[in-house]
Amino acid sequence: MKSEVTITSQYSNSSITLETDEGKLHGGDTSAPMPLHYFAAGVVTCLVTQMKAFAKRLRIPIKNIVMSANFHWRIEQHGRRPYVSQPIGFDIDIDVGSDAPVDDIKRLIEASKKGCFAEQALTLPCEIGHRLKVGDDWVEV
Amino acid sequence: MKSEVTITSQYSNSSITLETDEGKLHGGDTSAPMPLHYFAAGVVTCLVTQMKAFAKRLRIPIKNIVMSANFHWRIEQHGRRPYVSQPIGFDIDIDVGSDAPVDDIKRLIEASKKGCFAEQALTLPCEIGHRLKVGDDWVEV
Repeated sequence: MKSEVTITSQYSNSSITLETDEGKLHGGDTSAPMPLHYFAAGVVTCLVTQMKAFAKRLRIPIKNIVMSANFHWRIEQHGRRPYVSQPIGFDIDIDVGSDAPVDDIKRLIEASKKGCFAEQALTLPCEIGHRLKVGDDWVEV
Repeated sequence: MKSEVTITSQYSNSSITLETDEGKLHGGDTSAPMPLHYFAAGVVTCLVTQMKAFAKRLRIPIKNIVMSANFHWRIEQHGRRPYVSQPIGFDIDIDVGSDAPVDDIKRLIEASKKGCFAEQALTLPCEIGHRLKVGDDWVEV
């Protein structure tokens, strides 16, 4: 169940290779983080980072940010057939260490939600196109 | 711009801590992967892993899977004000090494799309709730 992935950001021109694995439950060896570990880490740290960056732009002084998030999915499972998963809802609790007025912090969070690539991809309609290689051609699937 | 995140899966009871940083462009030190590295890695490897798991369930023999994906966002930027980001579309090209009929591979991809937690979170409407700690209370923001 291991996979290796190389991600390149065209914006920052940085490239990184990560490995994933699954737990024993799914036939993996737990030799690396699970795909959903990376996914959840990406969403939450994207918002944290956005808040840090936008706090500077908005000149709102913050000392630290602690987030606690829950990501809920459910699966519909019939015997051994492939299951269907569905997102139920994601909740993020934010504790900001700051002497700034609460309204400033609220304004910072509002701007950060809209700037966060991951959060926008989750909340706005997003199409994922898939193509399968068949011989020498790419076929939409 | 560094952050640290600990992710716990209630399903597999596995927990892992990851660090993130940003590039110099955003005032970071590039000491760790960027949040979007993790996000993109999570989405793509989630689908790969789903295909591996469901190939077994559907008894479709596959040798290997190679994916190449593009994640497109755009930002609307006015001077130094916080920007607004918007997903344009994500494309995933899939090359499957297999002697199985193409229709079986298409069936595998279709099932994997619906099983993949990350892909379902991106394509289905998904609400993210946010609460801010104000004194001892949690306030919806």
